[in-house]
Amino acid sequence: MGHFNLEYPKEAVNTVKRYNAHAVYALETIHRIVNTCQILHVSFTTTTQPFPVTLPMIGQMGSYDRPSADLGDPLDIYLHGYVSSRLMNTCRGSTNDEANGDNNEGMPVCIAASHVDGLVLALASYSHNYNYRSTVLYGYATPVKDEEEKLYAMELITNSVVPDRWRHTRQPITNAEIQSTGILKVRISSGSAKISAGQATDDKTDMSNEAMLDSTWTGVLPIYSTMGEPVPSSYNRVKLPTYVSEFAGDYNADNKELSLKAAQGERRAL
Amino acid sequence: MGHFNLEYPKEAVNTVKRYNAHAVYALETIHRIVNTCQILHVSFTTTTQPFPVTLPMIGQMGSYDRPSADLGDPLDIYLHGYVSSRLMNTCRGSTNDEANGDNNEGMPVCIAASHVDGLVLALASYSHNYNYRSTVLYGYATPVKDEEEKLYAMELITNSVVPDRWRHTRQPITNAEIQSTGILKVRISSGSAKISAGQATDDKTDMSNEAMLDSTWTGVLPIYSTMGEPVPSSYNRVKLPTYVSEFAGDYNADNKELSLKAAQGERRAL
Repeated sequence: MGHFNLEYPKEAVNTVKRYNAHAVYALETIHRIVNTCQILHVSFTTTTQPFPVTLPMIGQMGSYDRPSADLGDPLDIYLHGYVSSRLMNTCRGSTNDEANGDNNEGMPVCIAASHVDGLVLALASYSHNYNYRSTVLYGYATPVKDEEEKLYAMELITNSVVPDRWRHTRQPITNAEIQSTGILKVRISSGSAKISAGQATDDKTDMSNEAMLDSTWTGVLPIYSTMGEPVPSSYNRVKLPTYVSEFAGDYNADNKELSLKAAQGERRAL
Repeated sequence: MGHFNLEYPKEAVNTVKRYNAHAVYALETIHRIVNTCQILHVSFTTTTQPFPVTLPMIGQMGSYDRPSADLGDPLDIYLHGYVSSRLMNTCRGSTNDEANGDNNEGMPVCIAASHVDGLVLALASYSHNYNYRSTVLYGYATPVKDEEEKLYAMELITNSVVPDRWRHTRQPITNAEIQSTGILKVRISSGSAKISAGQATDDKTDMSNEAMLDSTWTGVLPIYSTMGEPVPSSYNRVKLPTYVSEFAGDYNADNKELSLKAAQGERRAL
């Protein structure tokens, strides 16, 4: 399915209005931004207070029904959290409330994932900018009850933290661990991304301001996430395995390259 | 006022229930997490759809009424965005709606700021963890109309991207720039932070599993944001000024040190 370059439909909720030249609706781009983001911000509303509530969570996109799905295929988001947390409870309340037919498809959530790739410094403060990749997805969250699907999601999420980690951890996981791990599955309704990449630009008036040009540094300060030297635990007995050291190397090289390419104007998601 | 170690009151909305030993209510800690976060996730609700809406924004905490306030003093958040964006419009609607008395204090928003400091790898997948610093603040947003306050906020936010940048950009900024910059001021009602730092830990059963101990690497992969070699624009004429190079150096040294200290269990906000 990846061959078709699927896009999320443009609806009122997800259509980007400002700087819409930066907008992206392609599933593959959006899903990659989510899957490379170590913290997702998951927001939902409650009936008891006027503010939406945002929780930082770990999550990953995947398809239990079709585990071989590509990043560009329709996918769900699986979110990891403690089973009795506020979001899990609200979700359960929402899906169990039979009197409220509207809600039995799950709890409406908004999931945001953002990466900063650089600080763009121009002559005018007004022309300053970030290079960034950000996405927002809207969907309906339900707790995963099926044990096989829960195990699929736990493996998916563990391997999203460090690829191939799952099969190197103690197996099998215990029944108590499965019971006290809460997994939310979010069926995505719509989504969009914004990607900004490029060098400093200033308007014509500032570009003809010789005094400013002669005194003010303009350019990009690339920003990227780095993995430092691994710090073994006090009870570690083994040397760093290849699957971890290769991941750390790729993480650092890929993130650095992406921020430099962004400074050169290449709009690309990692 | 910083001497009094002010804390946000614990109310229903902001009291941390899970892992509450990680909870922090101190204003100084919370404000520092916000002010060192390059992207804030700002969420609000609308009447037209069931999902909350989250926007990635640039923001900074400060006090226009008392610009000399410390980080530990009561502060507002100033958020930067294009003036006609959805949030600005919703905000304006909310504050101009005289028929709706409840809303004239501003639009209820939730602001989240998160930093990842490390990936904590244990023997059991269930014992894996992140080192992180995250905060969520709740408050009421109103557009800043007073021109002097707007200028204060624009300088505050520009200098939060690169310290001392404002006075090195073209001054004065034009009236058109002021008019088309939207600044939201959020009066904070409550907030809390969670900070997790430390090494891998496993439960007793796993710690006595010799086969696992002999085969599985455990420890922390420190994660921190890095600033790469500055990339000058095509029209840059000057060498990198000291205030930028010093900022880049401090940024890299401080972030790296913080992630290493977190791996050693030091719960500290930068």
